[in-house]
Amino acid sequence: MDLVQLFDKEEKLIGNTITVEGWIRNHRNQKEFGFIDFSDGTSFQHLQIVYDKDLYNFEEINKLLVGCALRATGEIVKSIGGKQNIELKASIIEVLGECPADYPLQPKRHTNEFLRSIAYLRPRSNIFQAVFRIRSVAAQAIHEYFQSNNYVYVHTPLITTTDCEGSDQMFKITTFDFNDLPIKDKKVDFSKDLFGKMAYITGSGQLHGETFAMAFKKIYTFGPTFRTENSNTKTHANEFWMIEPEIAFCDLDGLMNVEEEMLKFVVKYVLDKCSKEIDFCNQFIEKGLRDKLEKLVNSDFTRISHHDVVDILKKAKVKWEFEPDYGEDIAKEHEKYITEYFNGPVFITDWPKDIKAWYMKINPDGKTVAAVDLEVPGAGELMGGSQREDNMDVLLKRMEEMDVNKEAVDWYVNLRKYGGCYHSGFGMGFERLIIYLTGVENIRDVIPYPRTPGSCEY
Amino acid sequence: MDLVQLFDKEEKLIGNTITVEGWIRNHRNQKEFGFIDFSDGTSFQHLQIVYDKDLYNFEEINKLLVGCALRATGEIVKSIGGKQNIELKASIIEVLGECPADYPLQPKRHTNEFLRSIAYLRPRSNIFQAVFRIRSVAAQAIHEYFQSNNYVYVHTPLITTTDCEGSDQMFKITTFDFNDLPIKDKKVDFSKDLFGKMAYITGSGQLHGETFAMAFKKIYTFGPTFRTENSNTKTHANEFWMIEPEIAFCDLDGLMNVEEEMLKFVVKYVLDKCSKEIDFCNQFIEKGLRDKLEKLVNSDFTRISHHDVVDILKKAKVKWEFEPDYGEDIAKEHEKYITEYFNGPVFITDWPKDIKAWYMKINPDGKTVAAVDLEVPGAGELMGGSQREDNMDVLLKRMEEMDVNKEAVDWYVNLRKYGGCYHSGFGMGFERLIIYLTGVENIRDVIPYPRTPGSCEY
Repeated sequence: MDLVQLFDKEEKLIGNTITVEGWIRNHRNQKEFGFIDFSDGTSFQHLQIVYDKDLYNFEEINKLLVGCALRATGEIVKSIGGKQNIELKASIIEVLGECPADYPLQPKRHTNEFLRSIAYLRPRSNIFQAVFRIRSVAAQAIHEYFQSNNYVYVHTPLITTTDCEGSDQMFKITTFDFNDLPIKDKKVDFSKDLFGKMAYITGSGQLHGETFAMAFKKIYTFGPTFRTENSNTKTHANEFWMIEPEIAFCDLDGLMNVEEEMLKFVVKYVLDKCSKEIDFCNQFIEKGLRDKLEKLVNSDFTRISHHDVVDILKKAKVKWEFEPDYGEDIAKEHEKYITEYFNGPVFITDWPKDIKAWYMKINPDGKTVAAVDLEVPGAGELMGGSQREDNMDVLLKRMEEMDVNKEAVDWYVNLRKYGGCYHSGFGMGFERLIIYLTGVENIRDVIPYPRTPGSCEY
Repeated sequence: MDLVQLFDKEEKLIGNTITVEGWIRNHRNQKEFGFIDFSDGTSFQHLQIVYDKDLYNFEEINKLLVGCALRATGEIVKSIGGKQNIELKASIIEVLGECPADYPLQPKRHTNEFLRSIAYLRPRSNIFQAVFRIRSVAAQAIHEYFQSNNYVYVHTPLITTTDCEGSDQMFKITTFDFNDLPIKDKKVDFSKDLFGKMAYITGSGQLHGETFAMAFKKIYTFGPTFRTENSNTKTHANEFWMIEPEIAFCDLDGLMNVEEEMLKFVVKYVLDKCSKEIDFCNQFIEKGLRDKLEKLVNSDFTRISHHDVVDILKKAKVKWEFEPDYGEDIAKEHEKYITEYFNGPVFITDWPKDIKAWYMKINPDGKTVAAVDLEVPGAGELMGGSQREDNMDVLLKRMEEMDVNKEAVDWYVNLRKYGGCYHSGFGMGFERLIIYLTGVENIRDVIPYPRTPGSCEY
């Protein structure tokens, strides 16, 4: 029986004999009896197993160390004086796998840095039991939100030969032997490679996603993306997961409605399904986490233009490191100020076109684009989206201005020719969401096996 | 209003005025009136829009061609003589995006080869509306099965420096300029690359998945995988999606139970949610598809050893292209015979160890491994799994025999040292499942943008 099933029934099971399999997380072994703090990983709650000299192999069991795998059969009894309502009075305990004294994961507080160095063991620790279950449940929340709202989940390709986002930000892939490259005209001859040309792994599925939105109206992607950024910060990784919905017949207001509704749905879902994990994070990682999340579910998100945000920033009695400006991006310090100013999440809309991407819709003023960033208290920018330019002539002009290779994405441009319509989409970095949901500070601690510059272990 | 919502309510909406946005799939334009076959992609069903000269822009609307995007407002009325129960009597029709006469996707039967050449438009065709919605719904079915059974969804890394599966089958990745590679001792100096060493994109998340199964008991992966195989067949692609569950405290019988239960759940889920799409595939792609799927849900899967399968094959009065043998793999013709022999899905267990992977558990006979392949009628091998070798000494000996680099996966070996236990896992190619669910023959037609040797378009 999984512990999660056991704790679902709890006191109803009293008097029943059950068998559980899992691991020793802690062991208080006395001369005549012992208490095992036991977990199988299906529940954040542990089960206390009590045993005594009636066990035929008492001596063997009594010596077992933390980390050992075992199978225990016994009666569920009311717990006396323990933290739990029930415990298991073991009649049989079998050792399935021993664990030596040098087991690195002893029941004490370890630093996150140390746990990162044993990434293959750290999911057994309380903090990573919480973080990676929240990660899993949040992923499911995202799927449930979109599927129940008639979105089609699209697996956009990872391998691409379209380098319109700037190939210097993408990993190149090859099947060549690097020390025996085919050369033609003094250059590497990619016509000999598997795809017959240079190929990359992608940083976004958006352009492909739009082609499916023009067929299914509402689609989303959810998959890994890659960036070559050589940046060793708490928020950058070279491999991360992204969610990229694209919606036909949707303008910027409609897009903000979707973003707000989805985020509230996901946060509520995680609060409901991972209540114990959130409590743990609230106690040991970010004080006030639960309040922050519960407040978000019931708040109305502010909607304000970039111009008006800069107004507020300029009026603020703050000595900025970066002076706010109508033509410039918003710095981290500004994000923080604005979410505190409005005491909640803020949609910042209508950004200067020069600092935004070529596919975003130009507003009637000719200077700004119909783009929106969602800033949330404590985590900064969580989502970025825009209405997409649906006027083919305007789009082509923008591509020219911004030096985008038209031939590589003629199909994307053609969407405006064959029954184009107003449409919008956004991207959300999944790890940033998990950081927001758990209070964990470093992106390395929300990814099972993080990949960062100089670090690709396991 | 999404068409899927409209068709949910259907006749309850009669008399209501609604607005829909979508595309013209076909247009019968008469002198005084017209019928538009209209779809927004949220439902496999189309809506008939009827209009007449009362429209102020009748002349403009009457000329519209297939593919055009429009917004229509009008009353839902009972359909007379149409295939649908209801239709829309339009009072306003606005053109959102025109579509010229050279639109490649005209309402007639196109070959799959032609549709592949317009991959960015093909999701608008009936067949790909069916296939890609089934793909999306099947993905959700998989998530729901595992999540509702307490599995943790793990994002195992795509980028890896562990080449234990044979690096010649993996794409290498780099941030280097191929025409300006750093050289040291006459070799490319990967210490200068982003990760400080040679890196790959992976073909499996299994080994990393096992580390999480040893923490959460039950986990699954669902993500893209890559193979460099230079093979141009109907069943090979260089990028595809895999599901890889790993389960602690689970033996081979337990694993087969999971595989069988999961497959039945997914098939039933798709039959329930995509009934119209399955009907279409049944009519136009694979006659008997619906029967095949309904039968699977209610069948018991046969479980038989590889040895006994070879017995049956040897006794069969068939002239084989490949002679069956106790020490050999099962060929496609054998798979077909066996599923027909048992008239349903067949688990083939206990394979000769020499033709299986190094991490599979050696049976007490010393000759076979506790591996299982699931063969299904019409699609061959759908899943492959095994109990994993949990005896560290046996595992190390196998790695030596099969020339696996121990240093690269010392962490994997260590799982046997720190509270190891019997455990099992399997892999399912997602595209193979979609082929099975739709009857589509070519893997290129179940992937949004397929990547195959010589072909990486879009």
